[in-house]
Amino acid sequence: MSNGTLILMRHGESEWNASNQFTGWVDVALTEKGRAEAVRAGELLTEHDLLPDVLYTSLLRRAIITAQIALDTADRHWIPVVRDWRLNERHYGALQGLNKAETKAKYGDEQFMLWRRSYDTPPPAIEADAEYSQVGDPRYDGIDVPLTECLLDVVKRFIPYYTETIEADLRAGKTVLIAAHGNSLRALVKHLDGISDEDIAGLNIPTGNPLRYDLDDDLRPITPGGVYLDPDAAAAGVAAVAAQGEKK
Amino acid sequence: MSNGTLILMRHGESEWNASNQFTGWVDVALTEKGRAEAVRAGELLTEHDLLPDVLYTSLLRRAIITAQIALDTADRHWIPVVRDWRLNERHYGALQGLNKAETKAKYGDEQFMLWRRSYDTPPPAIEADAEYSQVGDPRYDGIDVPLTECLLDVVKRFIPYYTETIEADLRAGKTVLIAAHGNSLRALVKHLDGISDEDIAGLNIPTGNPLRYDLDDDLRPITPGGVYLDPDAAAAGVAAVAAQGEKK
Repeated sequence: MSNGTLILMRHGESEWNASNQFTGWVDVALTEKGRAEAVRAGELLTEHDLLPDVLYTSLLRRAIITAQIALDTADRHWIPVVRDWRLNERHYGALQGLNKAETKAKYGDEQFMLWRRSYDTPPPAIEADAEYSQVGDPRYDGIDVPLTECLLDVVKRFIPYYTETIEADLRAGKTVLIAAHGNSLRALVKHLDGISDEDIAGLNIPTGNPLRYDLDDDLRPITPGGVYLDPDAAAAGVAAVAAQGEKK
Repeated sequence: MSNGTLILMRHGESEWNASNQFTGWVDVALTEKGRAEAVRAGELLTEHDLLPDVLYTSLLRRAIITAQIALDTADRHWIPVVRDWRLNERHYGALQGLNKAETKAKYGDEQFMLWRRSYDTPPPAIEADAEYSQVGDPRYDGIDVPLTECLLDVVKRFIPYYTETIEADLRAGKTVLIAAHGNSLRALVKHLDGISDEDIAGLNIPTGNPLRYDLDDDLRPITPGGVYLDPDAAAAGVAAVAAQGEKK
């Protein structure tokens, strides 16, 4: 039996993508544009005859609802779904809720980029009882809820889950859809493509555009970097993500 | 540990509820009214502080999406979900797709009520290759897809699944939400309340109004018939279901 296919999908635009705020583990809703992106993602799955057998999502509604809409559009709303906190976005610490442009203006370009893209330096920790802290949220019962995370922290929680759980579905020949977030997907792409700690800083993942990885016998990508189902939108989306420090 | 709580929820209005067609296993979408009913169901869960720990649904989108909307409204969109064909609506055989009022006018009141409410007499079987047959649908791979079902057939497929799988969650103290269909829920209520084969004909379940069952040590209902979270809407909804043969 040949190995399965992996499809990575970042959620559609959320309310805080639109208002340019650091989101992290804050559970904001999709915008209407985000819902439309999810429909388009489902159409792309159908057009490419790429029909998932199983879905993995984070515990955050922007990923859960994006996947639900995309799968409903592709007539695959009935497949099994597994939701796990390890797929969550990077926790943005005390930055959660802050406007990105204001943060950049206040702390300067260098500090801003360090917080956003440093591999192993997390932002300042959030207070456990702050408005945008997730300490005490019942969905994380039994979990040591983080107060901040760098990308390395995401790698440490997500990649073992990927290799222990998700890879089993791939080895069984399944088409696996992972609906997650900018940074949890960067962590996975870093692992899949063997990207260095330095080079991962330059990699951005656009919203709502499925990224397909076909895998060899060792579950390594046959095409490095994978293939976006909508390559033109992917190029435009990457540029938009890179420019987030600019708009206000 | 005390036993858990069971919540039964029939999906909100579907397109074929609105057009008064027999639906069965045909996978029609919710109407806007149906989506609003799902939001209201979620508000009722919140108002009654009745927050599910796990969700079971059929493989049909009207139940899947109703549950998703209700749980998103109640901030419980992140709970584990199990989808199984055994929760599906009764298969309506060759009646699937037909208008209920036209069917009643053509075949007469007696035959119409027999098809709708007889416990052990199924409607005529659908042709396997008919437009509204589910034979060959990939979601039922490995299942002997029915060509028609009476309520007894639903009891035979759903109740063993309930006692073997769902009861384990209840014994573990969980609050279990079952999002399903008029007839699969009638099958379960028959089992829970010990309703006779004759009397079950008179029981209707309204859409989008959660029905709560608290259970004793033997997982029998403490309050026979359970408690609707919105009793007034339940009374109106039951009357509407009973009148479905009238409107066109």
